[in-house]
Amino acid sequence: MLTQETVVQNFTSKEARIAELLDYMHEIQDLKALGDLAEWDQNTAMPEGAAEVRGYQMATLQGILHERWTNPRLGILLNELSEVVKGSDYTDTDRGLVREAQRNFDRATKLPRNLVEEIARVQAGSFEAWRRAREHNDFDSFAPWLSRTVALQREVADRIGFAETRYDALLDYFEPGMTASKLDKLFAPVREVSVTLLQRIQSSGSTVDDSCLQGDFSEGRQMELCKVLLRGMGYDFSRGGIAISPHPYTSDFGSPFDVRVTVHPHRHFIQSLVMAAIHEGGHAVYEQGSAPALARTPIAGGASMGVHESQSRLWENAIGRSEAYWLGQYGAVREAFPEQFASVDAATFARALNKVQPSLIRIEADEVTYNLHIIVRFELEKELINGDIAIETLPGLWNAKYREYLGVEPATDSQGVLQDIHWSSGFGYFPSYTLGNLYAAQIYSALRRAFPNFDERLATGNTTFILDWLCEKMYAFGAIYQPEPLMKLVTGAAPNAEYFVRYLTSKFEAIYGLSKYS
Amino acid sequence: MLTQETVVQNFTSKEARIAELLDYMHEIQDLKALGDLAEWDQNTAMPEGAAEVRGYQMATLQGILHERWTNPRLGILLNELSEVVKGSDYTDTDRGLVREAQRNFDRATKLPRNLVEEIARVQAGSFEAWRRAREHNDFDSFAPWLSRTVALQREVADRIGFAETRYDALLDYFEPGMTASKLDKLFAPVREVSVTLLQRIQSSGSTVDDSCLQGDFSEGRQMELCKVLLRGMGYDFSRGGIAISPHPYTSDFGSPFDVRVTVHPHRHFIQSLVMAAIHEGGHAVYEQGSAPALARTPIAGGASMGVHESQSRLWENAIGRSEAYWLGQYGAVREAFPEQFASVDAATFARALNKVQPSLIRIEADEVTYNLHIIVRFELEKELINGDIAIETLPGLWNAKYREYLGVEPATDSQGVLQDIHWSSGFGYFPSYTLGNLYAAQIYSALRRAFPNFDERLATGNTTFILDWLCEKMYAFGAIYQPEPLMKLVTGAAPNAEYFVRYLTSKFEAIYGLSKYS
Repeated sequence: MLTQETVVQNFTSKEARIAELLDYMHEIQDLKALGDLAEWDQNTAMPEGAAEVRGYQMATLQGILHERWTNPRLGILLNELSEVVKGSDYTDTDRGLVREAQRNFDRATKLPRNLVEEIARVQAGSFEAWRRAREHNDFDSFAPWLSRTVALQREVADRIGFAETRYDALLDYFEPGMTASKLDKLFAPVREVSVTLLQRIQSSGSTVDDSCLQGDFSEGRQMELCKVLLRGMGYDFSRGGIAISPHPYTSDFGSPFDVRVTVHPHRHFIQSLVMAAIHEGGHAVYEQGSAPALARTPIAGGASMGVHESQSRLWENAIGRSEAYWLGQYGAVREAFPEQFASVDAATFARALNKVQPSLIRIEADEVTYNLHIIVRFELEKELINGDIAIETLPGLWNAKYREYLGVEPATDSQGVLQDIHWSSGFGYFPSYTLGNLYAAQIYSALRRAFPNFDERLATGNTTFILDWLCEKMYAFGAIYQPEPLMKLVTGAAPNAEYFVRYLTSKFEAIYGLSKYS
Repeated sequence: MLTQETVVQNFTSKEARIAELLDYMHEIQDLKALGDLAEWDQNTAMPEGAAEVRGYQMATLQGILHERWTNPRLGILLNELSEVVKGSDYTDTDRGLVREAQRNFDRATKLPRNLVEEIARVQAGSFEAWRRAREHNDFDSFAPWLSRTVALQREVADRIGFAETRYDALLDYFEPGMTASKLDKLFAPVREVSVTLLQRIQSSGSTVDDSCLQGDFSEGRQMELCKVLLRGMGYDFSRGGIAISPHPYTSDFGSPFDVRVTVHPHRHFIQSLVMAAIHEGGHAVYEQGSAPALARTPIAGGASMGVHESQSRLWENAIGRSEAYWLGQYGAVREAFPEQFASVDAATFARALNKVQPSLIRIEADEVTYNLHIIVRFELEKELINGDIAIETLPGLWNAKYREYLGVEPATDSQGVLQDIHWSSGFGYFPSYTLGNLYAAQIYSALRRAFPNFDERLATGNTTFILDWLCEKMYAFGAIYQPEPLMKLVTGAAPNAEYFVRYLTSKFEAIYGLSKYS
C-alpha cells in the first residue's frame, strides 16, 4: 500500500512540477513573442516617428520579462527539479525544458537589472556612434564606445562565470557548451583549407562568369519569385509570411505556428534576393519543423545560433548553390524574368552563384572566403574580451589579418573594422556563422548518406524528402538537446571540421576544375 | 518656516503622487500598445495557422494588464488622490488622468477575473455561432449565445453599478456620463428628421446618379489614392501607416506617435475606399492631434467612442461629402483613374457620394437613413438588457422597426437581425455611431462659425485651417475632459440634436431640391 501511494504521489508531483514550470514558461514565451512581433513591426512597417515610444514599450516588456525570469518561486521550482529531472520518469523533453529554464533564470538573476539597463543604453548610443563612424570613416569616434562595450561584456562574463576565459562565458550564451579552445581546434583546419583553396583557385586561371545575375529585376517579380522558392523548400505560408526589411532576417512569434521571413530585393542583382530567400527559408523551415508540443516554451525552435545558422547555410549553400537544386527549381527563375534568362541554362545559373572572389565585405563573401572573414573577427574579439589587445590597435590588426588570410587590405576603416553592426551590441556571436557552416557540412554528409541518389531526387524539383528527413531527425526536437549531443544524434558524430574541409575542397575543385594535386 | 515647509512638502507630495501614478499608467499603456499592435498584425498580416497561439499570447497579456489594473497600491494611490486632485495645485490634466485611471481600476476590480474570462470564452463561441448563423440564415442557432451574452452583460451592469437602468452601466463604458434617458431625448428628433426627410426625398421624384462611382478600379491605384487623400487631410505618415484588412479600422500603438489605418478596396465600387479613407483618416488625425505630453497615459487619444466617431464622421460626411471639399481634392481621383473620371466633374462626383436610398444594411446606409439603423438597434438592445423583451421575439421586432422607420423589411434574418457582429460580443456600443453624428454636426457648426468663408477655403484644396482649429480646440486635450464638458469647451454648448437636424435638413433639401414647405 505504501509503495503504491508513494508511486502515485511521485507521479502527481512530477506532473505538477512540470505543469507549474510550463505555466511560467508559457507566460514568458507569450510575452517574448509579442516583443519579437513588435521588433518585426519595427523592421517592416513602423513609422520613424514611433521610435521613441516603441523604445519605452520594449523597455517595459523587457522589465516584465526580467521580473518573470527572476521570480524566486521559479528558482525554488528549478532547484527542486534539478536533481529529480535526471530520473527515468522524466523525459528528454522535460530535461531540455528544465535546462533552458535554468540557463535563462541564471542569466537573469546573475545580471542585475541596472547592468542590463546600462548595456541597453550603451548599445543604443554605440549603434548611433557606429553608424556615424562608418559613414565618416572615423574609427576614433567609435573607439570609446567600443571600449565601454568591452568593459560591460567583461563584467557580464565575470558575473555569469566561466572555466577558462571570459570569452567562453559570452560564447556560451549563443552556443551552449562551446568554448574558445574548442573553437580554436575547430577553426584551424577551416582557416587552412580556405586560404589554400583560395590560392589554388586564384592560380588556376579558371573563372566563373556571373554576368547573368546582373540586369533589371522588378521588385514585384522578385517578391513573387521569393514566394515560389520558399514554397519549393516546403516553407508553409499558412504558418508564415514574408515582408521587406533593410536586412533579411527570420523571426518567430510562437514556433512552429508563426514563423516569418524578410528579404530585401536589389534592383540590379538577382543573387541577393534568391540566396537570401533560401537562407531565411532554411531558418524558417527549421522553426516550423519544431514539434507543436514544444510551443510556448524556450525549447521550441532552434538549438543554438550555430545550429540555426547550419540550417540557413545547408539550404543556401549545400543545397541552394548546387546544380541539382537548380535543375529542379530554375523554371521559377525563368518564369519570373523570361527575357533575362531565355538563353541561360540551369547549370550556368548555378555556376554563377558560386563565383569565388576575395573581398573586403563579409556579407558579400563566397563560400570559400566567408569563414576567413569570421575567423578574423573571432580572433580579434577573443583577444579584446580577454584583455590581450588595446582598442586603438584594432584597425591595424584587422588590416593585417585581411592581408594575411584573404590577400586584400581595406583602404578605409569603413570597409574594414567598422563594417559590421555586431560590435556595437556585444561579442561572441560571429563564431556562430562558421560553426553553422561546419554543422551544415556534417549534416549534409549525413543527408547524402541517407539518400544515395540525392542529386537525382533533388533535380526532380521535389525537396520534400530532404525536409521530411530534417524534420524527423532534427527539427522536431527544437532545443531539447544542446548542439553537441544534437549533432551526435543527427549525424552520429560530435562536431568536426573535416566534413566541411572535404565538402569545400571537392565542391570547388569541381567548379574551378582544379587538379587534386595542384 | 513651518508654512514654507508645508508648502514645499505639499508640492513634493503632489509631484511624487502624480509621478507614481504616471509610472503605473506608462507601464500599462506600453503593454496595451503591444497588444493593440498584435491585434493589428492579426488583421493585416498574421497567418491563419497562428490563430491559436496568438490567442494564448493575447490572453497572457490581458492577464498581466488585469493584474496591473487591480494592483492594490494603485488603489491606495488613487484613493489618496481622489480628493486632493480637486485642489488648485492640480491641473485639468491631472484630474483627467486620475479620473480615467479610477474608471479603469474600478472596472478591473469590480469584475472578477473568472467573469472576464467567461465573457472572453462566450465571445469567442458566440462569434463563431454568429458567423455560421448569418451564413445559414439561422437565428435559432444563435439565440442561445445571445441569451448567454445578455445574461453576462446584465451581470457586468450589476457589478459595475448604475443609477437608473442596467443599460446605463454598459453605455457608460463607451460614453462616460451617458444614460439611456439622455439618449432617448437626443435621439427622438433624429428619428423624426430622418423619417421625414426620407419621405420628402422619396416623394420628390428627384434622384442622384451614382453611376460614375462604378467601374474597374485597380487595387494598387486605390491604395495610392488613399494615401493622397490622407495626406490631403493632414494625416502624418511619419507617425502612421496604412494596410489592408477585411474591415477598415484605425488603431494606435502609442498616440500621437503611431496611429495607423486600414482600408479594404473594392474592385468595382470606388466609394467604399474613398469614404473609408476619409473616415479612418478622421479617427487618425484625432489621435495624432493628441498632445505629446499625454503619451503613454489613458488620456492620450480620444475622449470616448462617440467623440471618436464624431471626428470620423465630421471628416467623412460633413467635409468629405461636400462639393467644396471635392473642388479641392478631386484632382487626385482623376489622376488615379483618368479614364473613369475624364468626363465627370467634381460637383457630379460629390453629388454621387450623397445618394439616399433606404436599405437593409447599416454599413451601406447614406447619411439620411444611417441613424435609423442605429436607433433600431439602440431601442432593441436597451430592452434586451433591461429585460423587457425575450430573445425569440427579436427578429420580428427588428423587422417591424425596419418597416416602420425605413419602409423596408428584411426577407431573411441574415439581412436583418443577424447582420452585425456587435451583439456577439456585447451591448452599448451602437449609440456611439449616432452620438458621433450629433457631435459632428455640432462641431461642424462651430467650425463654420469660426471660418465664415469655410467653403471657399476648403475649395482651394488646403484643409490645414480645419485640422489646426480641431487640434487646438479639441484634439490636443485627448481624454482630459469627458464628452459633455468637452463639447461645451469646443462648441460652447452641451450635446444637442438640433445642430444635426438643421445640418441634415438643409444639406439634403439642397441636394434633392426639396421645397422648404414640402
